[in-house]
Amino acid sequence: MNYKIENIKKIIVTNPLKLDCGQTIKDFPIAYETYGELNKKKNNAILIFHALTGDQFVAGDNPITNKGGWWTTAVGPGKAIDTDKYFIICANVLGGCMGSFGPKDINTKNNQPYGLKFPVITIKDMVKAQESILEHLKISKLLSVLGGSMGGMQVLQFCALYPDKTFSAIPIASTASHNAQQIALNELARQAIMSDPLWNKGNYYQDKKVPKNGLAVARMAAHITYMSDKGLQEKFGRKLQEKKDYEFSFDADFQIESYLRHQGKVFVERFDANSYLYISRAMDYFDLSKQFKNGLSEAFQNHNTKFLIISFSSDWLYPTKNSKEIVIALNASGANVAFAEIKTDKGHDSFLVEEPEFLKTIKGFLDSNFEIFKNEK
Amino acid sequence: MNYKIENIKKIIVTNPLKLDCGQTIKDFPIAYETYGELNKKKNNAILIFHALTGDQFVAGDNPITNKGGWWTTAVGPGKAIDTDKYFIICANVLGGCMGSFGPKDINTKNNQPYGLKFPVITIKDMVKAQESILEHLKISKLLSVLGGSMGGMQVLQFCALYPDKTFSAIPIASTASHNAQQIALNELARQAIMSDPLWNKGNYYQDKKVPKNGLAVARMAAHITYMSDKGLQEKFGRKLQEKKDYEFSFDADFQIESYLRHQGKVFVERFDANSYLYISRAMDYFDLSKQFKNGLSEAFQNHNTKFLIISFSSDWLYPTKNSKEIVIALNASGANVAFAEIKTDKGHDSFLVEEPEFLKTIKGFLDSNFEIFKNEK
Repeated sequence: MNYKIENIKKIIVTNPLKLDCGQTIKDFPIAYETYGELNKKKNNAILIFHALTGDQFVAGDNPITNKGGWWTTAVGPGKAIDTDKYFIICANVLGGCMGSFGPKDINTKNNQPYGLKFPVITIKDMVKAQESILEHLKISKLLSVLGGSMGGMQVLQFCALYPDKTFSAIPIASTASHNAQQIALNELARQAIMSDPLWNKGNYYQDKKVPKNGLAVARMAAHITYMSDKGLQEKFGRKLQEKKDYEFSFDADFQIESYLRHQGKVFVERFDANSYLYISRAMDYFDLSKQFKNGLSEAFQNHNTKFLIISFSSDWLYPTKNSKEIVIALNASGANVAFAEIKTDKGHDSFLVEEPEFLKTIKGFLDSNFEIFKNEK
Repeated sequence: MNYKIENIKKIIVTNPLKLDCGQTIKDFPIAYETYGELNKKKNNAILIFHALTGDQFVAGDNPITNKGGWWTTAVGPGKAIDTDKYFIICANVLGGCMGSFGPKDINTKNNQPYGLKFPVITIKDMVKAQESILEHLKISKLLSVLGGSMGGMQVLQFCALYPDKTFSAIPIASTASHNAQQIALNELARQAIMSDPLWNKGNYYQDKKVPKNGLAVARMAAHITYMSDKGLQEKFGRKLQEKKDYEFSFDADFQIESYLRHQGKVFVERFDANSYLYISRAMDYFDLSKQFKNGLSEAFQNHNTKFLIISFSSDWLYPTKNSKEIVIALNASGANVAFAEIKTDKGHDSFLVEEPEFLKTIKGFLDSNFEIFKNEK
């Protein structure tokens, strides 16, 4: 990482938070951003949960990396999630590296970065930590919670924990339980990081020799899973990288090779390898049904939250069947649930790119729910 | 690698072989094995091409690794590819590490291992090199050529190069042209290897400090692609590895993690990292249609070879659509072609495991073709 985290907006969570692993943390920072204005009735607030490598900078520019926000396709003035109308909140997850409490922070007890001494966290821990933001902003009930991928896991966990704190919820391209392939792909990324000698069992902060190679390989592996076979073929196919024929070498002959290398290279400038380990681990541990005696449907029993579940036809990382399992559980619990599978070749990344049908679906759902919610007692 | 290659059966190819990269090689070894007996008429010979990490030890024990052959499910006495009936030949590919000419061999010009000085090879080069085995054994026409994955690419290339040298052909779970996702996955593996500091630009043979970590990560990535989502879920799901609950650590909590780590660990004992680079590169360069002005169907024009194309329904690495492209081209060239998609959850690895429908399909095709072939003039 080559950025500096200063002057980031954050709260210090002073209430003790008992983590799933058994440890208790307190007085820890949660960094967040907001977009738009909270109205007087405080009924136009939407909490967005970010994915594995996301951060709180949803829209506009990210002042740390000097790049655009990660969801400018969906969030902004006049956009599907309209910042002229809604008050958007997004926090960096617990374990992250963009200002929230994470493994690169200094442990005041010994003045050393935590590294692997940081407690292993869960999606539940992340959600509990973010709930403090709502307390801080004095928002008793959100219009909606939404997020894609790991963000969707947080949406489900939030609804299960705080059934009365949101009017609606949109888990996108997500799952209620990480399956074997999803765990395998995260483990692959972790092994890539941990087998880089510079990782040094997580102690690399002082030397500033960070495990860039391993983290870049992890990112490349993940990036392949974010796109569909067809999407990759349409975008890259067998196109060569600024050459007329094969060079018979191990340089990037194909555009797809050059693209992957670039993705790895830029990623390591903005992300902490240990954060990748911790956050991916939290995803693997996520199995919402495990928290309830009678399975997943119990998680949503007697809820009034209105759900919209969205999946993408070409997403093979979190395929439609994962979303359908959520829909089935919600139906079994008598919940108010809508489901949309968006037809697209853009794979798991569909929620992050310009996908008109998807954006229209979200906008319609939010706007109609806002009409109902703002007229409630 | 911790095995010794001595007393391996091999031929020395004395004819100069002009490689696609422009270099010419000669007096190089091609290691091979045979199973069963060649009959008097020499019409019961089958040439099997191995996949990326395979070798010539198809059936019985591999005397080098002391493990079973890689295709004992299909090849052996009374099996689908019956060694009581047929004479099976399999050669280690050019670029490999099991006795054929590869990057770990010593360059007699400077007494150093080739490493990255080894020429970049193609599937076509591999096939040409293996054709020497047929000359050596004085077999003018094979009953069949078959192979899965990269083996299937060699089958297609063999038929295109030598239309009169085989009576039939079975490309299994393969493709006529490596696509963007397939290239991306190979590039990921190469990056994992090349970013291991011990890889040292391919010069690791003298120090015996081989890039095990990088090669293991490459293997783990590949292994995930060999299985299907459903297959992984049925076999591993979220089962824990000899523990009752999460350990909140980065050890292998889940069985799938432990399994992947094991796959990586055992692989590096038998495979050379540079061979992985070279062979995967050959796969990426494979685009059979590129060799013909009028596209893929020209590759098979005026051929009498009888083709059986096989794909597996849950294979997402070389999906059925890749096989269908071959079928379409063969049909367009007026070739004799049958096609079977085997329904299975076992993914790309289906051809290597016990899959009765698949084995029955191969057996039926080989046996009926042998009846015709042996009665030919």
